[in-house]
This record gives sequence, structure tokens and C-alpha cells, in this order.
Amino acid sequence: DLNNAIRDLTITEILDQWDEFTKEEMVRLFTHVDQEFKVGLISEIPTQDQETILIELSASGINNVLSDMEPDDLVDLIQQISPDVRQSVWDSLPNEVKEETEFLLKFDEDDAAGLMTPRYAAIRKDITVSQAINFIRKRVEKVETIYYLYVVDEFKKLVGVISLKEILTSEDNVTIDTIMERHVLSAREDTDQEHVVKIMEDHDLLALPVINRYNKLLGIITIDDAIDVMREEQTEDVYKMGAMSGDTDSYLESGIFKLILKRIPWLIILLLAGTASTNVIAAFSDVTSMAFVILFMGVITQTGGNCGTQSSTLMIRGLATGEIHFRDFFKIIRKELLVGSLIGLVTGIIIILRSFLLPPGGILIQEALTIGLSLNFVVIFATIIGASIPLTLHKIGLDPTVAAGPLMSTVIDVCGYAIYFTTIRLVLF
Amino acid sequence: DLNNAIRDLTITEILDQWDEFTKEEMVRLFTHVDQEFKVGLISEIPTQDQETILIELSASGINNVLSDMEPDDLVDLIQQISPDVRQSVWDSLPNEVKEETEFLLKFDEDDAAGLMTPRYAAIRKDITVSQAINFIRKRVEKVETIYYLYVVDEFKKLVGVISLKEILTSEDNVTIDTIMERHVLSAREDTDQEHVVKIMEDHDLLALPVINRYNKLLGIITIDDAIDVMREEQTEDVYKMGAMSGDTDSYLESGIFKLILKRIPWLIILLLAGTASTNVIAAFSDVTSMAFVILFMGVITQTGGNCGTQSSTLMIRGLATGEIHFRDFFKIIRKELLVGSLIGLVTGIIIILRSFLLPPGGILIQEALTIGLSLNFVVIFATIIGASIPLTLHKIGLDPTVAAGPLMSTVIDVCGYAIYFTTIRLVLF
Ligand SMILES: [Mg+2]
Ligand SMILES: [Mg+2]
Ligand SMILES: [Mg+2]
Ligand SMILES: [Mg+2]
Ligand SMILES: [Mg+2]
Ligand SMILES: [Mg+2]
Ligand SMILES: [Mg+2]
Ligand SMILES: [Mg+2]
Ligand SMILES: [Mg+2]
Ligand SMILES: [Mg+2]
Ligand SMILES: [Mg+2]
Ligand SMILES: [Mg+2]
Ligand SMILES: [Mg+2]
Repeated sequence: DLNNAIRDLTITEILDQWDEFTKEEMVRLFTHVDQEFKVGLISEIPTQDQETILIELSASGINNVLSDMEPDDLVDLIQQISPDVRQSVWDSLPNEVKEETEFLLKFDEDDAAGLMTPRYAAIRKDITVSQAINFIRKRVEKVETIYYLYVVDEFKKLVGVISLKEILTSEDNVTIDTIMERHVLSAREDTDQEHVVKIMEDHDLLALPVINRYNKLLGIITIDDAIDVMREEQTEDVYKMGAMSGDTDSYLESGIFKLILKRIPWLIILLLAGTASTNVIAAFSDVTSMAFVILFMGVITQTGGNCGTQSSTLMIRGLATGEIHFRDFFKIIRKELLVGSLIGLVTGIIIILRSFLLPPGGILIQEALTIGLSLNFVVIFATIIGASIPLTLHKIGLDPTVAAGPLMSTVIDVCGYAIYFTTIRLVLF
Repeated sequence: DLNNAIRDLTITEILDQWDEFTKEEMVRLFTHVDQEFKVGLISEIPTQDQETILIELSASGINNVLSDMEPDDLVDLIQQISPDVRQSVWDSLPNEVKEETEFLLKFDEDDAAGLMTPRYAAIRKDITVSQAINFIRKRVEKVETIYYLYVVDEFKKLVGVISLKEILTSEDNVTIDTIMERHVLSAREDTDQEHVVKIMEDHDLLALPVINRYNKLLGIITIDDAIDVMREEQTEDVYKMGAMSGDTDSYLESGIFKLILKRIPWLIILLLAGTASTNVIAAFSDVTSMAFVILFMGVITQTGGNCGTQSSTLMIRGLATGEIHFRDFFKIIRKELLVGSLIGLVTGIIIILRSFLLPPGGILIQEALTIGLSLNFVVIFATIIGASIPLTLHKIGLDPTVAAGPLMSTVIDVCGYAIYFTTIRLVLF
């Protein structure tokens, strides 16, 4: 039975199969696991399932589980559940929990303060190492991490930080003041969560303090939550690169209507932009009246699109990781021009050979050479456009991520036809 | 001067501007910073620059800097530098460092063991809490993290783990045996690095022990290095989705030839596959002899490609994060069929209206309706193909990441023409 089946599973293993369960099974499973699992599960499952379970629990059951959640996870839950469930959840919370939660609810989800927990270990700078160790041993249950101790003054302003490692290597009677690090890396309450991750990653931190503009310590962000943000921001970027909105709701849990809304805005924008190709083709009706021209329309613009996608992908990723800056613009364009020319040459030669050797065939030598030449031009154009658009968007403060494959191939389709037809007109007419 | 200019910079700030420096400036800067900065810099800069600096340093200089590096970072450096620099670096290393490094060099870079440091804290299960605390305070300089203590038996087999937090909350005279966690999460030496990250992320771990097949503890992987792997794997995926090889060498540091090699294999494969469109177009020469058909060739396959890219992006990301499994295949196809049908309808209507209302114009009503209908078919086809290919690749053990935009739009170009022309033939002939 259920009891036996779940006894040996870890929370992660249950979560892995979570989407397989029916609503009844979820509720039954939830009521059968112990308190620690309940808290772990409710913090990790999708919002809809949190609601399903919370509706089934009595007020005292809710109280029990939610009071044991980490405050940052509880705030996320309260922010995400629907308003009617929220009210009954809120009413059943004990007063201390309400207070802590109300403080955290004031901040924006995507900002540093939206990730923090107020359960940090803070000490004063005039205590000794042995006093600090005693203090930690007493406080350890009440804080999320004891591995960094934040040093604050009487106004709760952050004046230093010291790692537990540093404390344990120091002599018992040394005061914290003499060994603490005064240059504390921190985030302001409104620092963007992506930037928080970057700071923690660059400096290999396990936690980052969040301060307000008066330098008052508000809470800390722990590395496990920063990693979740990193995943989420990556998903956001991948979605945007696939011409969709960046919201990171679960695919399997999303309804049809939500998925369509996620996808259709960019599709329509690109469709309307792409119809400019009808005008280009119409303008070259003399060229397109030749049968061989039509044969290669698809593959030439497709190859250009692929090549532009490669260039823009390199730029988007380089900008995201901080490797590439706009100051490198001309260095990059020179590089892309060289790479594009050589790739254009190789692909040009391949398409010439292909048009001779394989069906449908019947292509004249001057036609094949013109096709190769125009593919070469389209590819060079594509590398330059593919590199310039993301860099320019980034420079003017827009998100370069949208200039990925779909946008590239649309732009290069329209311009690619013009380049292809113009080349043919110039060479063959 | 240089001294003043760099005095107030952190390592991260120097690294941010690193690519701006000339080789001479790099060497000059390196010789001016203190030992801690030297070690930090040499661990983080690109391989070529590591070589530049190592060549300039005397044997004793190399010895000094490299001996202070974390063993895992030193191994990475030795694995990456060119063979001739490697020899002189190796010769100047002290014997203890050589030994530790030789042990780590035996493992594959991309496996768990390739990420580990042998500097962990291990204790025996029969000691007491206060003995453990004393041990930690003595060992702290020699290990990378003291926040987890690994419990080993006389054969160095891993039998338990205990966090420093747990130790500090326990009574002084309790033995470790009674409080340690016996179910230790670990990686085998040959576990893939991507899987290592997943375990640490799912269980919010700060370090993960690496064991061999006899359960002997070899080393630990710390979270900062797991985060670097996460970034690297993400870059690899983004590159593959952009139809390039996944190697994560720096763009700015890569030469033209390397960049071309990274890009050209997929371009050629897709070009050759894409030329199948010439055969399709040739087979429908009766249809393409109508001018209006040619006008819409680009935008119809382009929209199909975009739609297929969206579907495949959703699948690729869901498979990467572990949200989507092959067992969801039919659920997903049903969902994509619905989404595709509705998107097909909307985009079909838009293209019909567009073909009437805006230039080039001159389209008959039955022609416009047929275009709308065939776009609808292409879009539905694209969503199904976009979802099925990544799921199927994953199922048969191949990397679904390659089935992203460029592959999708190539496949959909070829099939899209066939669908478009067939629709016209059936409706209008
Ligand atoms: Mg939050
Ligand atoms: Mg780091
Ligand atoms: Mg969390
Ligand atoms: Mg947390
Ligand atoms: Mg964001
Ligand atoms: Mg972003
Ligand atoms: Mg196309
Ligand atoms: Mg390594
Ligand atoms: Mg986690
Ligand atoms: Mg390390
Ligand atoms: Mg590292
Ligand atoms: Mg890999
Ligand atoms: Mg991968």
C-alpha cells in the first residue's frame, strides 16, 4: 500500500513522479508522510497542487505545516496561490508567522529582497571568538545558515562579516572586530535577482546579505535559492530565444489558453514582418519567372538564417555570461566578417556542386555559379546582422535575447530574397 | 600608475576588464598584485593568458603561485595548457603538490571526480562532538569546507555525514555515530558532471562526496564548482540549440579557424538536408507556375519553422530541467495538437486578411483562403514535429538539444513546401 510504497523514497524521488499522481493521490500521499516531508513537499510542488492540498487541510493542519516552512518559501506560496485560498491560509497562520511574512511580502518577487530570509545570524563586533561560538551554538536552530555571521552595529547597520571557518581558526579571546571582513559584499533590497546570482557566483559565496539604502541588514539570500533563480533565468532566456514569453510556468501544468498566450504574440509579430517577403518577391517577378530561381529560394534563405542564428546565439550567450561587451563591437564585426566570408565560400561551393550532381538537375553552369555567389553574399550578410542586432539591442538597454533564431531567420528571409534576386539580376541579365 | 589603479579593485573587477589588457599589461599587472590575487587570477583567466603569464614567471615564481592554488583548479590548468608549457610547469612543482595533482589527473574532466578536491574533512564515527569540534579547529586551514564532515571507517569507506550545524547543536559528549546521517548522497567517480549538479541542486547541498565503486571516499565537490558546471552546461546547450558544437571556449579568445570549425558541420548538414526543398519545389512545378504561390512560399514555411521552434524549445528545456519525461508523450502531443490547431487558425486568418489588405495585393479570394488553409496545416504539422523529435531523440538516448530552431526550420521548410503545394493542388486544381 501507499505507506510501504513511499517509505523508502526521498522527497526528490516523490517530486520526480509528482505529475503522475491524481489529485486524490496527492492529498492521500501528503497526509501519510511525516512533518519534515510535508514541509519539503509543500515548498516544492506547483502552485495548483499547493492549493489542492491546502484546501483539503484543516486550519490546524495548515497552521502546522506552513509554520514550519522557511519564511522565503512561505512568502512565495502566499504570493502565488489564488486570492480565495490565500485568505483562509492567512487566517490560520499564527501571529509571529504573520508578522515575519508581512515584512517579506512588502518586497518584489524578482528583487533581492524577494529571495531573502530574515533568519540570519548577526553578532556585535565587540564580542570575542568564544562568545561568538557560544552564541552560534544557541542560535543555530533559529537561523538558516551559521556559516557566515553578519556583524551589525546598534542600528542594525551592516559593518562586517565573518565566516564560521574564520572564527574557528581564531584564538578564543580575540574580538570579532579585529578579524572580521569590513568590505562586505551585499545586495540592495531592489537589486535584480539576476545580478544577485552573478555576485554570488563570481565570489563563490554561500549567502549574500540584503541591505536597505541606510545600510540596514534586512535578510540574507542563501545559495540554494540563488541556484533556483539561475535555473529560472536560464529557462526564461531559452524561452525568449525560442520566440516565446519568458514566464517560467510549468509546461505540463499550463492550460491550452496560457500556452497559446505564451506563443502567439511573437508568432504574429514575426508573421507580419515575414509577409514583407511577399513584397520583395513581387518586386522581382522578372527574376522569379525563371524556374531555377524558385528552386533555390528556400535553401538559400534557410542557410542564411542558420548562419545568422549561430552568430546571434554566440552574442546573446556572451552578453548573458558577461564575456562580451559592446566595447568589443568592431573586433566582433571584423571577426564575423572573416568567419562569414569563409563559411559563405564553403557553402557556396557546396550548393554549386549539389545543383550539378543531384536531382532535380538541369541547371546551367552560369546559373549554378550565380546561386553559389548569392548564397555567399547571403551568408556574409547573415553573420553581420546576426552579430550586430543583439549587440545593438543590448547597447540601447533592450533585452538582446529576443534577437535569436526566429527573429534572425525572419529578417534574413526578407533581406535574403532581395540579395538573392539582386545577384541574379546583376549577373544574368 | 598601475599600483594605484589596481589597489582598490577586487579580483572580479580585474577579471571583468581582463580582455582589454595587452599581454604585457597582463604580465605587469600579475607581478604587481599580492599572492592571494595571483592565485585567484591564475585560476580564473583564459588558458592562453595562463600560459602567457606562466612563461614569464621564473620556476620559483611558478612554484609559489601554483602551490597555493586549489588542487581542482590546478588540475584544470595543467589539463588545459599546451604540452610544452605543461612540462616546465610540472618540473617546478613541489613533490607534495605533484602527488596530489597526479591523483586528480587520473580522472576525466567531465566526470564527478574531475571536479573534486581531495581536501575534505573526514572523521571517525566513535569520536564525540567536542572531539570533532577540536578536530575541525585544527584541520580548518587544510580543508576546503568544514561545513560537512564525512564519516569514514578504517578502510576510508564513506559511512555517514554530519553537518557542522548539526554538530554545534549537539551535546559535547554525544558520539558522532548516534547523530550522523547514514544515508549519504554521493556521486561515483564516473558520474556525469551534469548529474552531479542536479543532485546538489535538488537536495540543496553545499558539497557532495565522490566515492569509487568500493564506496571509498575520494574527494568532495563544492557548490561553487557545481555552479560553474551549471553555467558551462547551459552555454553548451545554448550553442547546440544555435546549431553549433557545444564546446564552451571563449568567443573572443577563439581564432577564426576554431570558430569556423564550431559552426560549419551543422551548417553543411542542414544545407544538404535543406536542398531537398529543391526537389520538392521541382516536383510541384505545375503549382509554382502560379505567381501568387511563389509570393507566399517564404512566409508560410517561416511561420511553420517559428512554431516548430517554439514547440521544440519547450520540450528541450523541459527535458533538461527534468520536468518533462517521455512517459508524457501522448499527453504532450494532444496538447500540441490543440495549441497548434488554434494557433494555425489565428495565423491562417491573419495571412488571409494581410493578403487582401496590403500590397502586393491582386490575390483572389479563393487563393487567399487556400493560403490561409495551408498555413493552418503547416502550423499544426510544425507543432507535432517540434514536440515529437526532441522527445524521440531523448527516448533513444540521443541529445534532444540539437532538435532546436535550425533543424526544425530546415525540416519544416522541406515538408512545409510539400504541404503548401499539395493543399493548393487539392483545393484549386
Ligand atoms: Mg520569493
Ligand atoms: Mg564561482
Ligand atoms: Mg528554496
Ligand atoms: Mg530558502
Ligand atoms: Mg528575469
Ligand atoms: Mg534575463
Ligand atoms: Mg526559412
Ligand atoms: Mg577539473
Ligand atoms: Mg534546490
Ligand atoms: Mg574548487
Ligand atoms: Mg572553482
Ligand atoms: Mg556536458
Ligand atoms: Mg547537456
